[in-house]
Amino acid sequence: MQIIGCYAQTELGHGSNVQGLETTATFDPQTDEFVIHSPTLTSSKWWPGGLGKVSTHAVVYARLITDGQEHGVHGFIVQLRSLDDHMPLPGITIGDIGMKFGNGAYNTMDNGVLRFDNVRIPRDQMLMRVLQVTKEGKCVQSNVPRQLIYGTMVYVRQTIVADASRALSRAVCIATRYSAVRRQFGSQNGLETQVIDYKTQQSRLFPLIASAYAFRFVGEWLKWLYTDVTQRLQANDFSTLPEAHACTAGLKSLTTSVTADAIEECRKLCGGHGYLCSSGLPELFAVYVPACTYEGDNVVLLLQVARFLMKTVAQLPSGKKPVGTTAYLGLVEHLMQYRCGVQNAEDWLNPSVILEVFEARAARMCVNRAQKLGSFPNPDEGFAELSAFLAEAAVAHCQLIVVSKFIEKLQQDIPGGEGVKQQLRNLCNIYALNLINRHLGDFLSTGAISAKQASLANDQLRSLFSQVRPNAIALVDAFNYTDHYLGSILGCYDGNVYPKLYEEAWKDPLNDSVVPDGYQEYIRPMLKQQLRNARL
Amino acid sequence: MQIIGCYAQTELGHGSNVQGLETTATFDPQTDEFVIHSPTLTSSKWWPGGLGKVSTHAVVYARLITDGQEHGVHGFIVQLRSLDDHMPLPGITIGDIGMKFGNGAYNTMDNGVLRFDNVRIPRDQMLMRVLQVTKEGKCVQSNVPRQLIYGTMVYVRQTIVADASRALSRAVCIATRYSAVRRQFGSQNGLETQVIDYKTQQSRLFPLIASAYAFRFVGEWLKWLYTDVTQRLQANDFSTLPEAHACTAGLKSLTTSVTADAIEECRKLCGGHGYLCSSGLPELFAVYVPACTYEGDNVVLLLQVARFLMKTVAQLPSGKKPVGTTAYLGLVEHLMQYRCGVQNAEDWLNPSVILEVFEARAARMCVNRAQKLGSFPNPDEGFAELSAFLAEAAVAHCQLIVVSKFIEKLQQDIPGGEGVKQQLRNLCNIYALNLINRHLGDFLSTGAISAKQASLANDQLRSLFSQVRPNAIALVDAFNYTDHYLGSILGCYDGNVYPKLYEEAWKDPLNDSVVPDGYQEYIRPMLKQQLRNARL
Repeated sequence: MQIIGCYAQTELGHGSNVQGLETTATFDPQTDEFVIHSPTLTSSKWWPGGLGKVSTHAVVYARLITDGQEHGVHGFIVQLRSLDDHMPLPGITIGDIGMKFGNGAYNTMDNGVLRFDNVRIPRDQMLMRVLQVTKEGKCVQSNVPRQLIYGTMVYVRQTIVADASRALSRAVCIATRYSAVRRQFGSQNGLETQVIDYKTQQSRLFPLIASAYAFRFVGEWLKWLYTDVTQRLQANDFSTLPEAHACTAGLKSLTTSVTADAIEECRKLCGGHGYLCSSGLPELFAVYVPACTYEGDNVVLLLQVARFLMKTVAQLPSGKKPVGTTAYLGLVEHLMQYRCGVQNAEDWLNPSVILEVFEARAARMCVNRAQKLGSFPNPDEGFAELSAFLAEAAVAHCQLIVVSKFIEKLQQDIPGGEGVKQQLRNLCNIYALNLINRHLGDFLSTGAISAKQASLANDQLRSLFSQVRPNAIALVDAFNYTDHYLGSILGCYDGNVYPKLYEEAWKDPLNDSVVPDGYQEYIRPMLKQQLRNARL
Repeated sequence: MQIIGCYAQTELGHGSNVQGLETTATFDPQTDEFVIHSPTLTSSKWWPGGLGKVSTHAVVYARLITDGQEHGVHGFIVQLRSLDDHMPLPGITIGDIGMKFGNGAYNTMDNGVLRFDNVRIPRDQMLMRVLQVTKEGKCVQSNVPRQLIYGTMVYVRQTIVADASRALSRAVCIATRYSAVRRQFGSQNGLETQVIDYKTQQSRLFPLIASAYAFRFVGEWLKWLYTDVTQRLQANDFSTLPEAHACTAGLKSLTTSVTADAIEECRKLCGGHGYLCSSGLPELFAVYVPACTYEGDNVVLLLQVARFLMKTVAQLPSGKKPVGTTAYLGLVEHLMQYRCGVQNAEDWLNPSVILEVFEARAARMCVNRAQKLGSFPNPDEGFAELSAFLAEAAVAHCQLIVVSKFIEKLQQDIPGGEGVKQQLRNLCNIYALNLINRHLGDFLSTGAISAKQASLANDQLRSLFSQVRPNAIALVDAFNYTDHYLGSILGCYDGNVYPKLYEEAWKDPLNDSVVPDGYQEYIRPMLKQQLRNARL
C-alpha cells in the first residue's frame, strides 16, 4: 500500500509568519494522542499543493500544546482520507481552493483547503527530531542543532535560483528568436528591418539574455555553497550559516523578481502575437509568478538580508571579519574612499573596475543606512520606518553577488575556448552596465561613479549590444531547448513562425464549425432585428 | 436587416507599420469593382476583434492599386458572410486565431484571421473621404485635410488614458482594502500588524493610489484637449495638432505601461491569495496588458514623442515658440541655469519647486539628447543608435505633463473643500517625489537636484506615507466601485474577506464530488501499487 502526502503549513490567515499559525495539536496523555484542531476559520489550511483532491496524508504544522502550555509550531503526520475509498476521515473537511492565474499553469494542481474538528493521531506521528514529547506530556529538547533547518532552506532556495535561470532562458529564447523573424518598418530594400536590429529592442532584450546566463552561473555557485554548508554542518561548524542563509534568501528574491518581470517583458517584446497562448509566454508567466511569493515573500526576504547586512556593519568596529559574500564590507574604509578611475568607455570593460564600483555602491549604501538607523532611539522602530530604504541596500548587495560570480566564472576554463569566453564576457559586461544604468540613482548618490562616467557606461553598453547582435541567436540556441520543451510557436527553432501560427489557429475548437454554435440563438436574431436590446 | 462589422487592419506579418500592409485592392475599370486579395500568408488579416465568428462585414485596409500603380493604404467595406446562413462568401476564409492570455479576458472575444482570394466589391465600397477613385480608375485627392486622422487618434488615445486610470484604480482599491484586512507578524498585543502599516507595503502601494488619481486628472485634461483640437480643426487651425498628437501618444504609452505593471504589483501586494482568480487581479491583468501594444506599441509611441521633442529643441534657435505641454522648452536657457533651492524636507511640498525640478530634468535631458544626436553625421542613423536613450527623454517629458496637470487641478476649486484638497495635495506630492526616487539617475545626472536634496525628498515621502495611511481606505472607497464591478473577494467593501474566500472555494466544480473523478482510474491504482511507474 502506498500513500500520497502533502505539506500543510500555510493557513487562510497565515503565510509568511509561521509562528502565527493557529492550528493546534494538543497532547492528551490519557490516550497518548494529539488532538489536531482548527479553532478558527483563518486557521484552515489553505494552498497546500496536492491537498484538495489527491493526498491521503499530510504533514500538518500546528502549535503544540501540552498541559496547557504552548511549545511552538511543529509538524504532525495526519491521515486525511481512507485508503479504501478515498473518503475524508471523520473530523476532516477537504476541498480545492478554486481557479488560479492563467488557463493552465497551477490549475492542474489541486491546491487545497483543510479543516480539523478534533482529529486524534497517535503520539508517534509528531516529527520529533528537534523536540520530543514524552508519554507523560513532557517536552524534551533534543541536541540536534536547530540551525539544521537553515540548511534545508539553503537547499530549497538554491533550486529556486536554478529554476529562475531556466524560466528566464526559455522566455529570452522565445523573444530572441522571434525578434530575428519579425520585421517591421524601415523597408529601403523592400524587406523590412528585423526587430532585433532596433536599439530599443536590443536594450530591453540583451540585458535579459545576460541575466539568464548570470543567474545560471550564480545558481551553479549556490549549489557549491549548499554542499559547503552541509559539510560544515556535519562537522558542527555553523560559522558560515548566517551568511549563506542571507545570501540564498537574497538571491531567491532577486532572481525570481527579475525573472517574473522579464517573462512579461519578453512577451511584450513579441508584440501582439506574444499575447496568444501559442507563443508560450502567457502560461510561462502565469506558472512562474508564484515564485515571488512562495518559499519566502521576496520583500520579506530582502528585509532579512538587510537585517543581516546592518548587523554585519554594526560589528565591524569590534574587528569581526565579514565572511563569504560580505567580505567586501571588511574593506569598507577603502571602499568609502574609492574613486572610480573610468575615463573612457573602454575602461568599463575592465572586470576589476566593475567589481569595485559595485562594491563601493553596496558598501556605501549599507553604511549610509546604518548611519540613518543610528539616529533612531529605538532600533526596531528605525528598521520599520526605513524598511523600504533598507531593502534597496539588500538589492545592491545581491546584485554585487551576481556580478562577482559572473566575473569569477570568466576566470575559469570554459569549454569552447576564447571565442565562447568573449561572448560570455560581453554578456557579463552587459549585465553589469545595464544595472548601472537602471540603478543610476544609487551609483550617483553614493558617489561610486560620476555623471560623466555613467554616460560613458551607456556608450559602452550600446557598443556591446552591437557586438552581441550577430551572436544573439547562437547564445539562446546554446540553451539547447527542444521545440517541445519550449512550447512556443514564436520561439520555434527553424524560425518558420507564420505558417505555424496560421496552422495552429485552425486547431482551435472554435474553428471546428464554420458557422459558430449560438448563431441561431443569438447572432441571427440580432441580424434580423428580432432582439429588443440589440445595440448594432 | 442589420449587419455586424469589424475593423480589419493588422495582418499576420504587419502591425505597427500600417504602410507595410500587404492585402491588395486592385481596381478593375471593366466591372467598376475592386478586387480584394491576400497575396501572401503574412497578408492574412490577423487579430481583428469580432472577426473570427460573428462579423458579417469588415472595413478592410488594403494597398490601393489602379492601372498598375500603388496609391497607399485605404479602407474598403467588404461583406464577409451571407446574411442568410452566416456562411463565409466565396473567396473568403475566416477563423478564430486561438486562445489568449488568461482564463477569461479576451477569450470571450473572437479575434480572427481572414484571407481573400480575389474577392470583388463595387467601387463605392471604398472609403473615399481623402482619396477618390473614379470610374476610369483615376485617383483624385480630396481637399479634406489629411491631418483629420490625427484628431481621431487623439480621441482614441484619450479614452485609453481614461481606461488606464480606471483599471489602475480598481487594482489599488483591491490591494488597499485587502492590505487593511490582512495581518502578518508583529503580534505584541495578540493581534498581528495590518500589512498596510508596513512601510515596505506603503512605499509600493501609496504611489500607485497617487498614480490612479494622477492619471484620472490628466485623462480629464486630455478630454479638454481633444475638444480644443477638434474646434481648431473645424476652423482649419492645425497649429496645435503636432503637440497634441505627441502629448496623447506619450500619455497613452506612459499610463498603460505603468498600469500594466501596477496591476501585477497590486497582485503581489496581496501575497498568495492574489494568485487566486477570486482576487480579481489575474484577470484584470490579463485583460489589461494588450493596452501596451494596441493603438500604438508603447515604445514606438515614445520614439514619436522623442522625435517631436528633438524637432522642438532644434527649432528653438530660430525663435519658434514651443506651445502647450512643450512651452517649458521655450525657457530652456533659464532651466539649464536652474538650481534647486530645497534645503529641508518640507521644501519639497512646494508645488512650484516640484514643477521646476521636473521641467529642469526634462529640458536638460532633451538638450543633452539633441547635442548627442548632433554628433552623428546622419541624423536618422543617430536617432536609431540613440533610440533607447531618446525614449528616456520622452518619458521624462510625459511625467512632467502628468505632474503639471495634477498641480493645475489642485489650483482649482474641488468639491469637498480643504480637507479633500489636502489629501489630493498629499497624493500629488507622493506621485512626484516617488518619481524622483525611481528615476533618481535622471535627476542627479542632469544636476536638477543634488544627492542631499534627493535624500530629503525620500524623508518627505515617508512622512507623506504616514499622512496618507489613515485616509488610504477612504481614498480608494472614493472611486465608488460596487463589489459587483470590482469582482474581487480580497477587495470587498465590508472587508469580510476570509469567510467569503472560504465560501467561494466550495463553489469550484471540483468540489462537487468529495472523491474526485479519476480516483478509480488513476489514484487508486497508484495507491494499490498497481501502476508500473508510480513514483510515490
